[in-house]
Parts: sequence; C-alpha cells; structure tokens
Amino acid sequence: MRRTAALILIGNEILSGRTRDDNIQFLATRLGELGIPLREIRVIPDIRDTIIDTVTDLRARFDEVFTTGGIGPTHDDITAPCVAEAFGVPWEIHPPTFALLEQHFGADNFNTARQRMAKLPRGATPISNSVSIAPGFTIGNVHVMAGVPRIMRAMFEALAPSLKKGAPVFSRTWHTTSLFEGALAEGLEAIQNSFPDLDLGSYPFHREDGRRGVALVAKGQDTAEVEKAAQAIYNLLKEKGGAPVEGEPPP
Amino acid sequence: MRRTAALILIGNEILSGRTRDDNIQFLATRLGELGIPLREIRVIPDIRDTIIDTVTDLRARFDEVFTTGGIGPTHDDITAPCVAEAFGVPWEIHPPTFALLEQHFGADNFNTARQRMAKLPRGATPISNSVSIAPGFTIGNVHVMAGVPRIMRAMFEALAPSLKKGAPVFSRTWHTTSLFEGALAEGLEAIQNSFPDLDLGSYPFHREDGRRGVALVAKGQDTAEVEKAAQAIYNLLKEKGGAPVEGEPPP
Repeated sequence: MRRTAALILIGNEILSGRTRDDNIQFLATRLGELGIPLREIRVIPDIRDTIIDTVTDLRARFDEVFTTGGIGPTHDDITAPCVAEAFGVPWEIHPPTFALLEQHFGADNFNTARQRMAKLPRGATPISNSVSIAPGFTIGNVHVMAGVPRIMRAMFEALAPSLKKGAPVFSRTWHTTSLFEGALAEGLEAIQNSFPDLDLGSYPFHREDGRRGVALVAKGQDTAEVEKAAQAIYNLLKEKGGAPVEGEPPP
Repeated sequence: MRRTAALILIGNEILSGRTRDDNIQFLATRLGELGIPLREIRVIPDIRDTIIDTVTDLRARFDEVFTTGGIGPTHDDITAPCVAEAFGVPWEIHPPTFALLEQHFGADNFNTARQRMAKLPRGATPISNSVSIAPGFTIGNVHVMAGVPRIMRAMFEALAPSLKKGAPVFSRTWHTTSLFEGALAEGLEAIQNSFPDLDLGSYPFHREDGRRGVALVAKGQDTAEVEKAAQAIYNLLKEKGGAPVEGEPPP
C-alpha cells in the first residue's frame, strides 16, 4: 500500500538562518521506515493565513501531515489555533491537558500564557510529551508536534504506533570515485526505464578535500526489484570502468 | 525597501532522509545580509508538474526565487526544462555554454548527457560555476543553482552582486537559563505590540546535557528600533529575575 506524508516546519528561526534544521532528516528517515514516505516539506513563518492555507492545501493532498513548531506559550506560538481554524473547529481548553499542566507547573505558576498550552482544537487527541509535558495533538490526518528536536522526537515516537503504516522503503547504494555522473547518465536512465516503480537517484559529491564522485541509489517498496536494480547499477559501474563501492561515500 | 525571497530545494535526497540539508542555513543567512529575507522554503521531489507548479506559484508571490538541485546530466535532472516550461519558453542549446563545456570535457567526452547541461531556457543568463564549470542560470526573478553545497555557494556568490538589495536585517539576542518562556510570554507580547515592525522571537532550548532556557531575539531592518526592543527584552529578563546573557546559548 502506498501512503504519503508532508511536513510543515512553522516558525522564523529556520528562515532567518538563526537555527539549522535538526528535524527534517529524522522525520524523513522514520517516515520511510514506517512506509509513509515524505513527499513535500514546507518551511513557513508564523503568519496566520500562511499556516491555515498551507495546512488546508497539504492535508487534502497527502495521507498524513506533520507539523513542527509554534506550540509553546508565547505570542508567536499560533500553530494550534490556526490548525483549529483550518478544520473549522474551536480552539478550547482540553480539561485532561489542563489538569496535567496545572499539576506539572503548580497552580501558582500556571499563568495565562502557560494555559494556552492546555488548549486544543475541539476533537483533537493529545500526543504525549515525555520531555516537557505540554502535549502535541492529532486532528484528522494532521499531527502537530513541538519544534525543539528532543521534544519532537519524543512526540513522534509516542505517535508512531498509532500511524497506519505502508510498505517500508528499501534502498541499495553504490558509489564510485573514478567516474562522474555524466559518464553514467545514459546507462542509468536505461535502468530507470526498466524499473519504473523504483526511484533511481544519482548524487554527485564533491568534498572540500577534493574527493569527487557519484553515489547511485535504488529505492522502492519491493525488495526484490530494488536488489535487481542494484545489480544492474553495479554492472553499469563495472562496464564503465568504475570501482563500485557499496554504500554511501564517507563524508 | 522590503524585499522577499523564497527557496525551492528540488530532489529526493532530502525527502528520503538520505542527505541532511546543507544549503538552507547558508542561503537564509546570506539573503538576510543582502536585505532579501527568506519567507518560504519548499522541498519537492523531481516530478515535472510539481516543479512547474511550485515555480509558478512562488515567482508570483516573492521578489526573488532561488532553486537548488536537479541541473546535472542525469535522467532525474529536470529542473531546467521545467523552469523553461514555467516561463513558456523553449529549453535549448545556449551556444556560449556549449562551447565552454565542450572545451572543459573535451570533444570526445562531451556526450549527449553532458550536452543537457549546455541547454538553458531561452532568454536565461548563465550563473558562473567556478567549481565544476556547468552553469546555473537566471530567468526573470528565478535563480537556478546546483544542489551540491560547494557548487551552490560558488554560484550564489557569483550571482549576489547582481541581486537588487534591500535593507539588511539586524538582530539582537539575549538568553537565560534561569527562566522558561512561560514566565516571559506576557511581557514579551507587550514588547512585540510596542514594536510592530520588528519580529520578536522566543526560542526555548533543551540540551541533551540538561541545560534549559530560552533565547529572545529582536530582528528587523531598523537598527535603532532593534536596539530599543533589545533593551526592553533585557529589562524584562531582569525584572523577572533572570540573568540575561547576550547572544545565543552555547550548543
């Protein structure tokens, strides 16, 4: 079964260059393992209409949509009310979450700002947060998680068992430092044409220390087909005089 | 003058988790310095209609659009013909680029696959590539660059002097490890309301070694306003009993 996912990173810190993204690769890898491969990522600022439009667009086009960021207590944390609006439901106190957070912070410190984190869109299910308590949530096919990597990972693993899985994605990789992709392009295209259900990728690398070459990846949900394509790639590399090495090139 | 940019990363390697992105932070930072702040990023697969639709959408909404990836010689390098189609122009041999590449590869090695890299959308201007010769290009407000980070950076710096600049973005940052953002949210929102043209961000951090806290960032194109807001943030931190430290928290 083919399933698809999209990811929305919400907030200004990636767009401004302040923060280097530390969530995409984790989610891309985990979603591939669960057979829900990631097909599109958007990074957007915390602007109300942008969030609502992006959630509305992607939830119609992909089986599962994940968001990170914008669910803390501050003025720029507007993901939850925007997702509520995208679903046309109120954003309101969720009593079990209110009780959980009141106990965590203590009644004296559970101020108005922190009480925002006890509000969910009506009908949403909390995603538990073993790191800092305030939960994410799922509504429909949209899963709203924190942006702090440690917290996001804890939420994703809490959520993962309940996600409907597809066939996992397998891949096999060869690389060479004795050929460039221009010499392999025609042969690789012929292999791609023989395996239309697989995704064959050609990834040139060019390291600071001068090492150059290309990695060729065969990827798909049918293991036997992936193995056959990987063999064809190996044969192509040998035929062109490259020395094929299994796996990714060292960094 | 306010100018805006969007970025499209084209290719499957980020979406599959194979590769960690190494281009976003560089471009976000450099575009901020040039006063053309990045407002949206999309990561999309090398699927023809997706590329055409994404380029068409973003070039209408932002002053400048940058793309990375998909301009090599292989079957999955389809960025250039898709951009040509988005502009409604043919994708054709660009004679000066053809001559340059023929000289670089030597006539015997300049095969059909490599000749693809000598094709540009009609009317495009090449972006020179000091690393591996095959150029990127600009057409209208769309700037098409390689995905390999070293090559992308060389192309961006070749292009930068010709970009129309805006007012650079300044930022001032304070962080504290003795307060969390829930205690600061109301005060910070009041400061944001006093400086509506600035972007005030609150970024909690939670390190593997247990260090926790929050960084508060004031950012904008008016230096004097940024300084005033930074002073207000400092006063808020002192008033709430935090020990404000200038700059970002250590990693």
